[in-house]
Amino acid sequence: MIGLGPAGPTDESGTRGRILAVAAALFGERGYASTSLRVIAGAVGMTPPALYWYFPSKQAILHALLHETLFNLTGAVEAEVVGPMPEDRLRQYVRAHVLTTLAQPRVMPYEALFGIRQMAQFLTAEAQADLVAGQRRHLDLLRDTLRDGIASGCFRELDVTVTAFAITSMCDHVGAWWRPDGRFGAEELAAQYEDMVMRMVSPEGGG
Amino acid sequence: MIGLGPAGPTDESGTRGRILAVAAALFGERGYASTSLRVIAGAVGMTPPALYWYFPSKQAILHALLHETLFNLTGAVEAEVVGPMPEDRLRQYVRAHVLTTLAQPRVMPYEALFGIRQMAQFLTAEAQADLVAGQRRHLDLLRDTLRDGIASGCFRELDVTVTAFAITSMCDHVGAWWRPDGRFGAEELAAQYEDMVMRMVSPEGGG
Repeated sequence: MIGLGPAGPTDESGTRGRILAVAAALFGERGYASTSLRVIAGAVGMTPPALYWYFPSKQAILHALLHETLFNLTGAVEAEVVGPMPEDRLRQYVRAHVLTTLAQPRVMPYEALFGIRQMAQFLTAEAQADLVAGQRRHLDLLRDTLRDGIASGCFRELDVTVTAFAITSMCDHVGAWWRPDGRFGAEELAAQYEDMVMRMVSPEGGG
Repeated sequence: MIGLGPAGPTDESGTRGRILAVAAALFGERGYASTSLRVIAGAVGMTPPALYWYFPSKQAILHALLHETLFNLTGAVEAEVVGPMPEDRLRQYVRAHVLTTLAQPRVMPYEALFGIRQMAQFLTAEAQADLVAGQRRHLDLLRDTLRDGIASGCFRELDVTVTAFAITSMCDHVGAWWRPDGRFGAEELAAQYEDMVMRMVSPEGGG
C-alpha cells in the first residue's frame, strides 16, 4: 500500500480477509438481511468508518465473498488444466477441483457456503451477472474439454452439459464429508475421483 | 383428524406444510436466529397460539423441516430399490434419487436448502442425532448395494464410502441446474445419470 500514513491499515489483505471471514460466519448464522455493517464491524473489532475504508457497503462485502470463492476456485483449476490431450485436461480438472476445494480454509460450516451462495439475490444485477459469468467460465472449461475429447474419439458420445454438471457436483461437494484425519489423504481422494470421472466418459465399458 | 370440533384445524397436513414452507423461506432469507415464531405465524397468517397447536417451538419447526426433507427422500428411494441384483438396485437407487429430487416442490431457492441444513447446529443433540441417523440410513442403502456388487463381481474393487459419497453428491445436486423446460425431461436425465454411475462402478473399461 503506497501513500498510506501510519494511521492507515498496514495489512490490507489480512484485515480484508478477516472481514470477509467474519461476515461469512454472520451471514450464515443470522442471515444477510439481519446482519448490519455495524455488527460486522463490531465482530471484527473495528469502527464502522474503518470498515468503510475496505468495503463501501454490505453488498460489496457479500459480492467480494461470492466473487472470490468462485473465481479463486476457477483460477486455480484453470492454472492446472494445461495438458495437450483431453484425457490429461480432464484428469487435471478433477484433481485441481478436488484439491482446491479441500484446501479452502474452513471459515464457516461447509453447508453455510451453499446457503451464502443463494444470497446473491441481494446483489445488484451487475454483481449477479459477474457471478453468473464466473460460473459459466468454470463450466465452459469442463465442457470444452469434454467436447474436444468426443471430437478426438477418446470420450464417448455423451451430453457435455449434463456430464459437466455431474462432474462439478461430485467435485464441489467433496468437502461435505472428507476429513483431513480420515482414511484417505486429499491426493489419494483426488486420484479416486479422477478414476471415477475417466470411467464415466470412457468409450469402453458401460452399458 | 378425529375429535376436533369446528374451531380446530381441519386441514392439518395442508396448514402444517404451509408453516414449514413459510418457515423455510424465512430461515433462508433472514437466518434462523433472527426469525421468531411470531414472525413465522404472521407470515402464515396465524396467531402465535394457533401456530403452537402445530409446533411447540421454533426448534420443532426446523427439526420437522430437516427431518422431512431427508426422510422423505430416503423413504422414496428405499421404496424403489427392490431389484434382486446389485446392478438393478444401483440403477434403481440413482433413478429414484434423481426423480425424487427433481420432483420436490421448490419451496425456496435451491441453494437455500443447503444453507438450512447447516442450521441443524441450533437443534438439540437428540434432534441432531436423528438427522445423522437418517443420513447414515440413506448412505448405507448405497454402500450395501456397492458392497454386494463387489462381492458378486459385478462391480470393481472400489472404495464403497468414497464412491457412495460421489454418487449421492451427483444425485443430490441435480436440482441445482435442471429446469423442467430444459433440453431433457426428468426421466431422460435420470437415465443419463444411471448410465454414468454404472460406468463408474463397472469392472470393465476405465484405467
